[in-house]
Amino acid sequence: MTPKLTRQSRVSDIAKALGVSPTAVSFALNGKPGISKKTRERILTAIEEINWSPHYAARALSDGRTSTIGLVIARDPKAVGSEAFFMQLMTGMQATLSKRGYGLLFQVAPSIDQECTIYQQWADQKRVDAVAVVDLRKDDPRPKLLSSLGMRAVIAGDTSPLFPSVDIDDSAAMTAVGKHLCEHGHERVAYIAGSPQLHHVRERARAFSCLPPLQVEVEYTDFSGPAAAAAVRRQLEGADPSAYVFENEALTIAGVQALRHAKARIGIDVAVVSLEDSLVCEAMSPTITALHRDTYEFGKAVAGALLEQSTGTTKELSPQLIERESTSTSF
Amino acid sequence: MTPKLTRQSRVSDIAKALGVSPTAVSFALNGKPGISKKTRERILTAIEEINWSPHYAARALSDGRTSTIGLVIARDPKAVGSEAFFMQLMTGMQATLSKRGYGLLFQVAPSIDQECTIYQQWADQKRVDAVAVVDLRKDDPRPKLLSSLGMRAVIAGDTSPLFPSVDIDDSAAMTAVGKHLCEHGHERVAYIAGSPQLHHVRERARAFSCLPPLQVEVEYTDFSGPAAAAAVRRQLEGADPSAYVFENEALTIAGVQALRHAKARIGIDVAVVSLEDSLVCEAMSPTITALHRDTYEFGKAVAGALLEQSTGTTKELSPQLIERESTSTSF
Repeated sequence: MTPKLTRQSRVSDIAKALGVSPTAVSFALNGKPGISKKTRERILTAIEEINWSPHYAARALSDGRTSTIGLVIARDPKAVGSEAFFMQLMTGMQATLSKRGYGLLFQVAPSIDQECTIYQQWADQKRVDAVAVVDLRKDDPRPKLLSSLGMRAVIAGDTSPLFPSVDIDDSAAMTAVGKHLCEHGHERVAYIAGSPQLHHVRERARAFSCLPPLQVEVEYTDFSGPAAAAAVRRQLEGADPSAYVFENEALTIAGVQALRHAKARIGIDVAVVSLEDSLVCEAMSPTITALHRDTYEFGKAVAGALLEQSTGTTKELSPQLIERESTSTSF
Repeated sequence: MTPKLTRQSRVSDIAKALGVSPTAVSFALNGKPGISKKTRERILTAIEEINWSPHYAARALSDGRTSTIGLVIARDPKAVGSEAFFMQLMTGMQATLSKRGYGLLFQVAPSIDQECTIYQQWADQKRVDAVAVVDLRKDDPRPKLLSSLGMRAVIAGDTSPLFPSVDIDDSAAMTAVGKHLCEHGHERVAYIAGSPQLHHVRERARAFSCLPPLQVEVEYTDFSGPAAAAAVRRQLEGADPSAYVFENEALTIAGVQALRHAKARIGIDVAVVSLEDSLVCEAMSPTITALHRDTYEFGKAVAGALLEQSTGTTKELSPQLIERESTSTSF
């Protein structure tokens, strides 16, 4: 007779009840290849129905696994709180992780040094199975540290020779923005960028700056609104460009306010592009041309790479330029 | 001779080096009263300097503690991703938790039932020391379940007889909004609210509806933009109110777009108030009157209540009404 499954069932009980091998159950649980998609689904559905989970403490002692993925964000916690990107990344990761009973252990650190300390503690304490690394920098110490700690990791939004990664195709995106501005007759462009310490910010600036005939002036900021407003004021008094490109939503909002304050009419006197699309870009009047990327899907891809123990680099779908009123006038 | 402190030091070594009792070190580590603020600071600083942490596995076996606080959000993951509230709550919590070496284990669940399953698993697996409970509902099963599981919890943004809480003073906030609208001559008001299943949403609607001489029609939504736009269209064809109050940022953006589409001039033909302030309310043109609350500080208070094992209800500072252009005309 088939035993009735309960939350206390053992892997062998589950295998018996479903008519599969214990190895198949283990493969399904651990996301390993070697069983058909159909079998995997059937096993995971059965497990979900009985709310089964291998006893955490027992697992932690036997194989050191925690069913937890770690994510540290080394930015000012207040600034992170107003970044839609991170919440979408985390909820996208969660959409994939929670299906497999994984939790996301989240910590904000005031600096990369502190982030490294957290990784050391997590490694000491065996608190996570793997980590997602964001905001890669020039000469970033994290991949090397994680590798020396023997931790699994996936690089999100960049690449590293030491770990698999899910990358974003920034240069294609910047080319699309540049082409759009050229087509509307712009020559002088100000790029109000994020922190130059971030590798992806410098990559974007580099890709954007080698798009003749555009003359691009890059103004780096600390991702704060006041820094963006100050950069806009400097540009208005200096090169006085006909187009402004902003790194993210917060910089766009602050920059547009600074332009309005200087009586520059958005979409008429100056063009504005945001490199981060959001409801805000649609809600502003005039609406703001923006690069749309599906950060939620990106988060799912990062979580997938962590669970599947993928190797090499996965490219995320290229962002799409959504043309709106802020770049409708030709110069 | 005082022993040099390292990450491998024992509590007794740390006590000896600092000239305090091991109990004082334990009190400082566990946030218990009984030592002076100065001593606590000195101990925590010394511990931070050497990156010391009690070995996680050893602690988990000895006293069952995990240095982890759990947070489950039972909403559509995609919708959570665009809610600034949750990211600010989480980063505020993190600001307090990380100082004490605590991580935040975050999970999004598709339903309250699934959230309950996660709590059962966390209890089975001893994965968290305590949880923060958000979005309390009518006849909510969670406080009772958590209590029966023997888990510690703090109710965030509401109250429960079973657990301590950090509450938000919603009725005072709604009175401030109502008073402001009355002063500008409004009588018919549409309140485009969130889900009626959420206790705080119904409390707000109740507080707002008993403010004579206002006639308030409440339109509940599922927090989605399309639902807010549909509610606005119904109101325009029906009671045609002179003021619209929206529950949060996403509903405000969608509602304002629907009003614009119907050629209603914001701040002239109709007044608009958002019950959630954000950069967007400042960036929109005209700017939007909004209730400003410091969700980041609220998150810190919630984390503080979890760590201090506080009892009873803490009231968060009342939200402030920020008057802007969208309610500047008197009717």
